[in-house]
Amino acid sequence: MNTFDITYRVSVQDDEQIDEKIEGICIEQTAELPRGVLSSEVQEKVVGKPVSSDQIGEHLYEVVITWPLANIGNDISQFLNILYGNISLQPGIRIISADWEVLCPDVFEGPAAGIKNIRQQYNIQQRPLSATALKPLGSSSDELAELAYYFSKGGIDVIKDDHGLADQEFAPFEERLEACVSAVDRAGDDTGNRSHYYPNITAFASETVDRYKRAAEQGADGVLLCPHIAGLETMHRLAQLDIGLPIIAHPAFSGGLTTNGDRGLSPDFLYGQLWRALGADFVIYPNKGGRFSLSAEDCQGINKAATQNHSPFKKAFPMPAGGIKLDSVEQWMNDYGKNITFLIGGSLYEHPDGIEAASKEFQNKLRQAGG
Amino acid sequence: MNTFDITYRVSVQDDEQIDEKIEGICIEQTAELPRGVLSSEVQEKVVGKPVSSDQIGEHLYEVVITWPLANIGNDISQFLNILYGNISLQPGIRIISADWEVLCPDVFEGPAAGIKNIRQQYNIQQRPLSATALKPLGSSSDELAELAYYFSKGGIDVIKDDHGLADQEFAPFEERLEACVSAVDRAGDDTGNRSHYYPNITAFASETVDRYKRAAEQGADGVLLCPHIAGLETMHRLAQLDIGLPIIAHPAFSGGLTTNGDRGLSPDFLYGQLWRALGADFVIYPNKGGRFSLSAEDCQGINKAATQNHSPFKKAFPMPAGGIKLDSVEQWMNDYGKNITFLIGGSLYEHPDGIEAASKEFQNKLRQAGG
Repeated sequence: MNTFDITYRVSVQDDEQIDEKIEGICIEQTAELPRGVLSSEVQEKVVGKPVSSDQIGEHLYEVVITWPLANIGNDISQFLNILYGNISLQPGIRIISADWEVLCPDVFEGPAAGIKNIRQQYNIQQRPLSATALKPLGSSSDELAELAYYFSKGGIDVIKDDHGLADQEFAPFEERLEACVSAVDRAGDDTGNRSHYYPNITAFASETVDRYKRAAEQGADGVLLCPHIAGLETMHRLAQLDIGLPIIAHPAFSGGLTTNGDRGLSPDFLYGQLWRALGADFVIYPNKGGRFSLSAEDCQGINKAATQNHSPFKKAFPMPAGGIKLDSVEQWMNDYGKNITFLIGGSLYEHPDGIEAASKEFQNKLRQAGG
Repeated sequence: MNTFDITYRVSVQDDEQIDEKIEGICIEQTAELPRGVLSSEVQEKVVGKPVSSDQIGEHLYEVVITWPLANIGNDISQFLNILYGNISLQPGIRIISADWEVLCPDVFEGPAAGIKNIRQQYNIQQRPLSATALKPLGSSSDELAELAYYFSKGGIDVIKDDHGLADQEFAPFEERLEACVSAVDRAGDDTGNRSHYYPNITAFASETVDRYKRAAEQGADGVLLCPHIAGLETMHRLAQLDIGLPIIAHPAFSGGLTTNGDRGLSPDFLYGQLWRALGADFVIYPNKGGRFSLSAEDCQGINKAATQNHSPFKKAFPMPAGGIKLDSVEQWMNDYGKNITFLIGGSLYEHPDGIEAASKEFQNKLRQAGG
């Protein structure tokens, strides 16, 4: 029987036994009935089976459970249910990894482009990429396009919409898309080195698909999506559309899952592994030291998971955001290596010489790293 | 300027000032740039504004912030972003309530049916409703239909699919739908009192819409949906389709949001307020004392939020699940009153006299409450 493994970190209370807790997960995520009323066939073919359980701390275990693939039926919704449906409501269970080799390609196919193709297309081989965001919400399409123009003139590699720019009257999607693509084109003509514009397409699932197609038609270079608002499976559908526009995944609304102490999904699982499986080409995560709350270890874990060779999927660019300022870029390059895209907002906007000069300074720091 | 309020519970660390933390939320969820680089127009028309801040405990405040409606543009995705996008990644911020009067009907329209219409249609005025689930995963359509038949014979009001029944080969959606509707019809002919069957339609957003329509065409009485897997906005779209089949919302994958201590969404906000706004006619929540972890106060909070008059939306049936056994139903009726639907699984399946007898016993207990 075809099965896939999920690895958990399970903590138990004083009055709990680890074996009972594992048995609880095996039943809860499948049959949801006491074994006494289950047929032997269901117990054999449907219920999860413990593979291993290693104590790794006081009251703490690393547990592997294997699950029948037939429970999923090649359906990402049902994978999410087996992964973290009912047990999301129970304490002490955290998801660490999944068996992507078995799940690819029948359930997950990963990024359409991936790091290698993006580097090739952008002709950037040896250095980290730079990225910034067009904002604030409330700006007109023309104002955002003007920002895009000066960021482009300064040489920023990837210019994305702020994730709050949707289809508001301030700067409607179609108008903004056209204005910003045109601004980036114009700056490219001026400098001979074109930046890449990624509009935000987050919306209701079917509208997101429409906006993804429109972005491709209008000459955008990629898109920004909040998968925890538009739907996790929505991202995967976009990546499979045979359009191939790279997707930047944004963590809005995801924090409840990754910051929940001894439960939830580990940050490297969600942002590094699952988003990569779901087709993200860039994974934005809240960098250590910023306004948010991931640890250095979590950040390195995400970088590793998004880029490691030991995965059936193309590699995704880790895109740390928050906590990176113009004057700390070198330090982060030392820590994170070259397979990274640095997303800087505030410290470019605040630069006393303006955003074009700030962008050039940012870009120069990355070029010194090679490429 | 049209604005809507959101109420937060905000906790601060020793080194944090509450005013700075509130200012952080106002900026983070909108402009995402330091005030120094914001125009006065953006500061006036886009950034959130503090309304009140009351200390309610040590390091703990109840805070109201008001937000421009124009930031949303009538878009639920963007509402979710303002509500809990970036701040989901920050500690110490929990959502307590929102200003539904302002948000209805331009953003949210609430349940299509609601308690009153369901009671009228099912001719049950004075008592709680009974509900159960068809399971386990791995059963064939015929086996599930046979269960539906005996639950119906026993008089259960609402018979729903387990949320793990999707479109697997064991029991494909179309086959299961037809078999279970037919079984419930047959039992209704036998007893003169027809039960109501709700298939699970959770899938990718557009497929969910297709299955909702198929459920209506095939004579199902409602549907089950996991909005945190299919997408929150997906539920609202279904409720607006002018089909009117009641929706049971299931909390799979939602636990990270509601069980995150001093952050996330309070259970009464998510399951009682937001799901009601998003069109759920029944809201399943993990009842106190079961395999899950909500408190008595949380459960009562959900019941109140789903059914209170002070809301622009139709009322939703609270549907506690887990922790309710056949022999504790009377106690829960005393605690929860009549505007409730009790979801019992395990203790019906385990009954020594079989599920028909168990269902009759369940039903008799509710009938003694009147109606």
